[in-house]
Amino acid sequence: MFDAAIVAIGDELVLGQTVDTNTAWVCQRLASRGIMAKLHLTVPDDRAMIRDAFAQGARTAPWVIVTGGLGPTEDDLTRFAFADALGVELAEDPQAMAHLQTWYAGRGKTMPQTNLVQAMLPAGTTVLPNPVGTAVGMQGSLGGSRVFVMPGVPRELHAIFEESVQPLIDAATAGHFLLTRKINTFGLGESTVAGVLGDLMRRDANPTIGTTVSGGVVSIRLRAETEDRAQAEAMLDDAEAAVRERMGAFVFGVDSELLQEAAVRLLGDKSITVATAESCTGGKVAAALTDVAGSSAVYPGGWVTYANEQKAANLGVDAALIEAEGAVSHAVACAMAEGARREAGVDLAISTTGIAGPSGGTDTKPVGTVWFGLADVGGSRAWHAHLRGNRTMVRDRARMIALQIVRFAALGDDPAGIEWLSEAVPEGV
Amino acid sequence: MFDAAIVAIGDELVLGQTVDTNTAWVCQRLASRGIMAKLHLTVPDDRAMIRDAFAQGARTAPWVIVTGGLGPTEDDLTRFAFADALGVELAEDPQAMAHLQTWYAGRGKTMPQTNLVQAMLPAGTTVLPNPVGTAVGMQGSLGGSRVFVMPGVPRELHAIFEESVQPLIDAATAGHFLLTRKINTFGLGESTVAGVLGDLMRRDANPTIGTTVSGGVVSIRLRAETEDRAQAEAMLDDAEAAVRERMGAFVFGVDSELLQEAAVRLLGDKSITVATAESCTGGKVAAALTDVAGSSAVYPGGWVTYANEQKAANLGVDAALIEAEGAVSHAVACAMAEGARREAGVDLAISTTGIAGPSGGTDTKPVGTVWFGLADVGGSRAWHAHLRGNRTMVRDRARMIALQIVRFAALGDDPAGIEWLSEAVPEGV
Repeated sequence: MFDAAIVAIGDELVLGQTVDTNTAWVCQRLASRGIMAKLHLTVPDDRAMIRDAFAQGARTAPWVIVTGGLGPTEDDLTRFAFADALGVELAEDPQAMAHLQTWYAGRGKTMPQTNLVQAMLPAGTTVLPNPVGTAVGMQGSLGGSRVFVMPGVPRELHAIFEESVQPLIDAATAGHFLLTRKINTFGLGESTVAGVLGDLMRRDANPTIGTTVSGGVVSIRLRAETEDRAQAEAMLDDAEAAVRERMGAFVFGVDSELLQEAAVRLLGDKSITVATAESCTGGKVAAALTDVAGSSAVYPGGWVTYANEQKAANLGVDAALIEAEGAVSHAVACAMAEGARREAGVDLAISTTGIAGPSGGTDTKPVGTVWFGLADVGGSRAWHAHLRGNRTMVRDRARMIALQIVRFAALGDDPAGIEWLSEAVPEGV
Repeated sequence: MFDAAIVAIGDELVLGQTVDTNTAWVCQRLASRGIMAKLHLTVPDDRAMIRDAFAQGARTAPWVIVTGGLGPTEDDLTRFAFADALGVELAEDPQAMAHLQTWYAGRGKTMPQTNLVQAMLPAGTTVLPNPVGTAVGMQGSLGGSRVFVMPGVPRELHAIFEESVQPLIDAATAGHFLLTRKINTFGLGESTVAGVLGDLMRRDANPTIGTTVSGGVVSIRLRAETEDRAQAEAMLDDAEAAVRERMGAFVFGVDSELLQEAAVRLLGDKSITVATAESCTGGKVAAALTDVAGSSAVYPGGWVTYANEQKAANLGVDAALIEAEGAVSHAVACAMAEGARREAGVDLAISTTGIAGPSGGTDTKPVGTVWFGLADVGGSRAWHAHLRGNRTMVRDRARMIALQIVRFAALGDDPAGIEWLSEAVPEGV
C-alpha cells in the first residue's frame, strides 16, 4: 500500500473563514481503499508557497491530491505554481480549450476573456475533465509522484474525482481494503468505556479499536485492513458484536446515527409512545425527538413548563409540593412526568427539572443539578445528576441523558446504570 | 508581524471521519491579530509522524499550535512525540498532577490509573491550564519556535487558548490592529442586503464591508486595519451606525450574539412576556429562547402540540377547525397562538404549524409550507412561508423566523417585512 499527500489552497482556509471539508472528503475516499493521506498541507494564495507545497507533497508521498486555486481570477495561482514546481511553462491545452468553448456555447454565452487562463496547463500535464464546471483538473508527474489537481468547489471536486481519479485509485489498490465503522455509545465516560473494552483495544489488533469522545458520546472506532472486502466486513461485524456484548444498552447506533434517531427507532419498533415535560432543558428533548422524520408516530407532544405556575397549571404538579421540595427535586420530577403521561395519554413520559445556570445555584443544589423523572404504567422514578460546564453544556448533556433514559426504559434496562445518574436524594436536600 | 504553523493530530482527521474545525477556529483567532497560519499539517496517531510534524512546524514558523492526542488512551501519542522532537524524556509535572487530583476529588471520584499519563510532560515544558477537562496543554520551545500543545476537544481547546495563549498573542502583536466586527441580520436575503448597503461595500474602503450568509443569517462583516486600537474601534463604530441606519430592525446583534439572545434581551427591556405553541418546530423555538440565561423573566413556558389531539386538548384549538382548514393553516396558526397566550397569561404568543418533510406534502401545501401565528392583546395574525431544503433546514429556518416575528412584534414593526413571509392565504387552500 502507499500513502498520499493532500494540499488545500486558499486564503479563506488559512484565515479560517472557511472550514476545509474537501480534505476530509478526499481522505474518506482514499481511506476506503487503504490509502492514508499522511500529510495534509494548507497554504494561502501565494505562488511560491503553493509551489513549495507541490514539492513537499511529491517528496512525501507517491500520490498527491491538490485542491483549489483553479478559478479564472487573479488570486487563482495553482496552475502557475504547478508549472513552477515542474520547471515548465504553461501552454494552451486543446482539450481544455474545447471544454471551455463547448461549455459557453452550450449556455448560449460568450466566454469571458478572463476564463481563457483555464485552458492553460503546465506543459506535459493532461486534463482531468470537469463535467460540472469550467475549471478542468490536471494530472502530471512530479519527482516520480502522481499529482492530481482539482478545483476547490466541492461539487466540482467530487465530480472530477469520481469520474477520473477514483478509477485510477481502484486499479492501483486492487486487492486491498481498509474499512472503518463507528459504534456510538452514551452513558459511560471514555475511561470507563476503555476499561470495559480492555483487551479489545490492543494497538496490534486487526481490526484496531479506539475511542473518541464528542459531546458526551463516546464513539468506538473499528478499523479493519485486509485484501478482501467481504473479509473486512466480516471482521468489522465480529468486532462490533464483541463491543456490543460488552457495552450493552449504552450502544445506541452505528456511524452517523444520532441518539434521538435511535430512540425514535426503538420506540417505533416497540410501539411505545412518549411525552416530554421539560423545565431546564426548555424544549431541547422535544426538539431532538421531532428532529427525526416519523417521530409523530411515537411522540404526540410535550410541555415546556419553565415557570412553576406552568408546572402546576398544565401538568397538575401540586403547588404545595413545589413549595415544600423545591422545583428541582425528586418529587417534582416524578410529578411532572406523571402529569405529562396522564395528559398526553402515552406509555412513557420523561421530565427534566434543574439548574442550568449561570445563576440560581445553592449549596445543596449547585448549578448543574438536574433531576430526571420517568413515568410509566407502574408509576414513576427519578434520578439526579450534577452536570459540569456552562448553561449550554448542562442543557445539552441533560437532553442526551433524558433520551438515553427513554431508551433504557424502552429496553427494560435500569437507567441508574448511566454513569452520571444517582437515584438517591442527596443529603441535606 | 509573524507567521504560525498549525498541526492537527488524529487518525479520525486523516481518515476523514471527522472534519477538522479546530484549525479554522485557531486561524480566525490568529488572523484577527494579523498572524497568518501559513502551514497547516494534519498527521495520524503515529508517534514518528507527529514528531516530524512538530519539527516541520518549528522549522517553518516562530509560533506552532498543535491540537489533539492528549487524551488518556493508548492512541494518544502527542506528549511522547513532543518529547521525541525535543530530545527529552517525559517527567511527572506537579502542576498537572495537582490538576488531575483536584479534578477527580472535586467530582468525588478516584482517578483511573490510565489518566496518570496526563500528568507527564516533556522535560522543560510547562502547563497550559485546562479549566474544563483533565488534559492540560503544554508549551515549550523547539528550535527557537514557541510551541503550544492543546487537546483536540473543541471546548477544551477554546478554553485553554483563550485563557493562556490569547494573552501571549495580544502581547506579541501590540501595535498592529486588524479589528473586525460582524453585524448580524435576519429576514432579508444576501442579495437584498447587498442592494440596501450599496456603496458602503466598496472594496477600497477602510473599514471594508462584506457579507456572508449562514443558516439564513446574513452577517455584515466590517474590517478595519490601523496602528491604533481606539481609531480602529471608532472606524468600526461609524461603519456600524451606517449599516444599522439602512438595515433597521433586521439587525439583531453584533459578533456572536444570537437571534434568541437578542429576542430575550429586547423582551426583557420592554417587559414583554411570550409563550410558544409549536407543531412543526417541535420545541426548537422554546429551546432557543431557554438557551438564553435569564429567559425565565420573559418566558414562562410553552407547548409542543405535535398531534392534532394535543392542539385541541392543550391549546383549545377547535377540532372542527382543524378538520375544516387543516392543521397547517392560517386559522389553526392563529388559534394555537391565541390558546397559548390565554393559557400562559402572557403578552405575546407565537405559533408554528407546517410540513417539515420529508413526507406529508401536498400540491397546495408542499413540504416546507409553514404558518406562523402571533397573538397579542389586539387579537391574532398569521403569515406563511415556503421554506427550502430538508427537514432540518425547514425546522431551523422556521425557528429563526418565529424568533424574528417576536422581535418585530416587540419593536412594533410589521413582521410582513420579513422576506420569506406572506400574509395572504394562497389560492386553492
